[in-house]
Amino acid sequence: MKIIAIDSSGLTASVAIVEDETVIAEYTVNHKKTHSTTLLPMLNEIKKMTDTNLNSVDAIAIAKGPGSFTGLRIGSATAKGLGLALNKPIVPVPTVDAMACNAYGYRGIVCPVMDARREQVYTGVYCFKEGKKDPEILLKQAAMDIVDLCNRLEEIAGSKNVLFLGDGVPVYGEKIKKLLNDRGVRCDFAPVHMSRQRAAALAFLGEIYLKKGIFESAAEHKPEYLRMSQAERERLQKDSI
Amino acid sequence: MKIIAIDSSGLTASVAIVEDETVIAEYTVNHKKTHSTTLLPMLNEIKKMTDTNLNSVDAIAIAKGPGSFTGLRIGSATAKGLGLALNKPIVPVPTVDAMACNAYGYRGIVCPVMDARREQVYTGVYCFKEGKKDPEILLKQAAMDIVDLCNRLEEIAGSKNVLFLGDGVPVYGEKIKKLLNDRGVRCDFAPVHMSRQRAAALAFLGEIYLKKGIFESAAEHKPEYLRMSQAERERLQKDSI
Repeated sequence: MKIIAIDSSGLTASVAIVEDETVIAEYTVNHKKTHSTTLLPMLNEIKKMTDTNLNSVDAIAIAKGPGSFTGLRIGSATAKGLGLALNKPIVPVPTVDAMACNAYGYRGIVCPVMDARREQVYTGVYCFKEGKKDPEILLKQAAMDIVDLCNRLEEIAGSKNVLFLGDGVPVYGEKIKKLLNDRGVRCDFAPVHMSRQRAAALAFLGEIYLKKGIFESAAEHKPEYLRMSQAERERLQKDSI
Repeated sequence: MKIIAIDSSGLTASVAIVEDETVIAEYTVNHKKTHSTTLLPMLNEIKKMTDTNLNSVDAIAIAKGPGSFTGLRIGSATAKGLGLALNKPIVPVPTVDAMACNAYGYRGIVCPVMDARREQVYTGVYCFKEGKKDPEILLKQAAMDIVDLCNRLEEIAGSKNVLFLGDGVPVYGEKIKKLLNDRGVRCDFAPVHMSRQRAAALAFLGEIYLKKGIFESAAEHKPEYLRMSQAERERLQKDSI
């Protein structure tokens, strides 16, 4: 089974081609947020480098959200375009679930955090059960205030360490650590090579979804933002005055 | 601290630019073993994509071996060329130690295995101690027979699971599993996105080495093969007849 995976949900742009037990190619960039000009050239680069015929892929996995509104739209538009042109299904993968896969086998609780601004993060809570490669969802991905997240983690973690990763760590890491230490919960922060979105992790989860029949047509696919955009919020406020 | 990392020790070719807590770019390919024609274009691609001035890097981390003789020579030659041209130090990182970093936080024992042919693997045994990001070395990297490795793992693992990754898994995975199950040791195999060399993991370990003062000049650097090449073995056999 061959899968193209695309994640442009945050500052990271990442593309991969994964076939069965091999990452044929993965290309990830964290440099300026210019996904509209970099994502397709990155995909074209790995396609050419690996002599991949795009018609040979079984599906296109996409980080469906949450994340940056613009980033998600660029990723979804790219996936929809490919899916329509190639007549292949789209496998929408929850962004935070895919990020949790970076930490396969971690002994405690895994908590990816994406900066959602205004003291909020896009997050979810996961653990890895023995003998299972994909993460168990303990708290479904959602937009949450930092303090609410720490309260929930206090209930969930018990005596286990919590591992944080994602672009929320440089922004809220110290605050989260203090809040959790006050609650008697110990924190770890992922090393640099495991700390951001990876399209290969998305492809890994995408293949599991595809085998379970969780996919949609390119026409049906749309991103899940989890929150209203700033423009929508402002219009709502204006209308309610 | 900014590091360029290069791993062409096996079938995988991987390059990365890592700065402090961010993987600026990582590009990995598992497609034909044509590192001599792909490695420098891959590095040039991520350099251009991220507007990186190579003079701004602090060091070049290289997978020093073990691995494929040709692959290691191509990687080392590339690193030496860059190091000489830029006047930057080379940080030689044991290949298997860097691979172990893929499994940060894994609850049991981590055992990368690279196919070394003739029923042998290049391997090492590691674990992750709480609060430490780099792996603890339980058995230094070496070329070993499969059966010898399983005997050592029986002693080391105790009641803990052993996680295998690397290109030795598709070749010897089933055999290793049987040998270890017979000895009462449980095995896991890493999911696809964590199963091969990654230059970003090499850069992570390279930065730790650089800070400890473990580096050499481009002129000094040479790969560590751990075994004699086939040509050397055959000459030795011929001479001894």
